[in-house]
Amino acid sequence: MTRFALTLEFDGGPFMGLQRQDHGPSVQQAVEAAAKAVTGETVTLHSAGRTDSGVHALAMRCHLDIAKVIEPFRLMEALNALLRPDPIAVLACKVVPDDWHARFSCIGRAYEYRIANRRAPLTLERGHAWHIARELDAEAMHRAAQALVGRHDFTTFRSAHCQAKDPVKTLDRLDVRRVADHVVIEAEARSFLHRQVRSMVGTLALVGQGQWTEAQVADALAAKDRTALGLNAPPEGLYFVRAVYPED
Amino acid sequence: MTRFALTLEFDGGPFMGLQRQDHGPSVQQAVEAAAKAVTGETVTLHSAGRTDSGVHALAMRCHLDIAKVIEPFRLMEALNALLRPDPIAVLACKVVPDDWHARFSCIGRAYEYRIANRRAPLTLERGHAWHIARELDAEAMHRAAQALVGRHDFTTFRSAHCQAKDPVKTLDRLDVRRVADHVVIEAEARSFLHRQVRSMVGTLALVGQGQWTEAQVADALAAKDRTALGLNAPPEGLYFVRAVYPED
Repeated sequence: MTRFALTLEFDGGPFMGLQRQDHGPSVQQAVEAAAKAVTGETVTLHSAGRTDSGVHALAMRCHLDIAKVIEPFRLMEALNALLRPDPIAVLACKVVPDDWHARFSCIGRAYEYRIANRRAPLTLERGHAWHIARELDAEAMHRAAQALVGRHDFTTFRSAHCQAKDPVKTLDRLDVRRVADHVVIEAEARSFLHRQVRSMVGTLALVGQGQWTEAQVADALAAKDRTALGLNAPPEGLYFVRAVYPED
Repeated sequence: MTRFALTLEFDGGPFMGLQRQDHGPSVQQAVEAAAKAVTGETVTLHSAGRTDSGVHALAMRCHLDIAKVIEPFRLMEALNALLRPDPIAVLACKVVPDDWHARFSCIGRAYEYRIANRRAPLTLERGHAWHIARELDAEAMHRAAQALVGRHDFTTFRSAHCQAKDPVKTLDRLDVRRVADHVVIEAEARSFLHRQVRSMVGTLALVGQGQWTEAQVADALAAKDRTALGLNAPPEGLYFVRAVYPED
C-alpha cells in the first residue's frame, strides 16, 4: 500500500460537508468514488478537518492508501477528471510515509471567514460570503476577539453535537480586519471544536453592529454555557485555508 | 420625469447578456421588470456598455426615467428587493440631469479579464474565470499586447455581428500581469467593438502558451481580417469594471 497526501479545494455549497453522510452528497464520498474508479479499490479518505455543510476549503489536506502502483501526478489528473462536475479539485498529490496521517499528524489549522459588508445584496459572491448590510466596526470586533485568544474552555462556542471530550482549546490567533467592503476574520489553533469558528464570528458580528459590547464576548466565554452564545455565523462565509504538519 | 443613474453589479452566468433579448433572460429585462413593479411605469434601461451572454459587471452605469416621485435610496432598496433571486444588485442610485446619458455621455470604459492559470480544474471560481491549465508567460502576453494599444482598425478583433460603423478605435491601455496563479488583463478605451476584448485576450493567450509569437499579434491586427484572429476567449472571465463620465 502506498499513502498519498492530497490537497483539496472545494466549494462546499452542494455538499452536506466533507465527511461522508447518510443523507446527502459529501466531499469524502465523491473523492472515494473517484479513487475507486481509478484504482478499483475501496479507499477511505482521511482529512485534517471535518467541515460542515456549505463550508469551503482552499487547501484541505487529506490522505488515502492505495495498493495499485500509480504516479502521484497521474493519480491527481485521474481524480480531477473523474470529480467533474463536482466542484472539488485536487491541487497537489504526493507520496507520504505510512505513518503520516492527515488528521493525527496535523499540528495546526487555519480558517478564514469572509463577511461582505455592504447595503446591496450579493451577486458574484453569493454562497461565498456572509452578507451583512449594517456597517460593521471591524476594529471593535478585533479588540473583542482578543478575549478569546489563548487557552480557554470554549463550551459557549461549541455545537451541542460536538464530539470532542475536552472543551478546553488553545486559540492562537483571531484577527479581524476590514478590506474595502469586506470584513475578514482569520483564526488559527492546533484544533477547533465543532462550530467554534462560526460561533465566534457570529458573536463578533454582534459586537461589530453595536448590539453587544466588547466586554460581553469575554462574559460569554466565562459563562461556559452554549445558551450564552450570541449568534452562529452561516457556513457560506467559512473557508478552511491551511493545515500545518511538523515537516512544513 | 426624473432621470436616475444606477450602478449595477451582476453575475452574467444566467443571462443572455445585458441587453434585452427575445430568446432568453437579460439584465435589462430583469431591471425593467423590477422598475415597473416599483413605479407601475414601463421604463427603458440604458447602459454604458452592452455585455454579452455570460459576461459579468462590477460597476455597470445605467439610467432610467421615472415619473413617480421617489427618493433614490428608496428606489435602490426596492429594486434590490425585487431583483432577488436574480444575481443583479444596484450598488448606487442617484438623480442626474435630464441630458446625462449612461451610454452617450460615457467617455471611457474599462474591462478586466481573469484567467485562472493552474493545472487543477476550478471549483469556487467556476464561471468566474477562464481556466487555462498550460502555464502562461504573462510577460510575453503583455509585450505582445502593446502592439494593440493606440488608434487602429480593429477589424480582426471584432465580431462578425458588430454593428459599429467604423472599425477604427483607440485602445488606451492593455495591460497583462500575473497575480499568483492568475493572469489578469486590463483594457481601457473610450469604446470597444463587439467582442473586441475577448478577441484580444484569446489571441494573447496563444502568445502566452507559446503557440503564437509576439509579432503575430501585430500581423493579425495589420491583416484587418477576422479570419486572422487567433482565438476568442470565453465570456466567463470578462468583467465590465468601470465607466467614466466627464464629471468624474
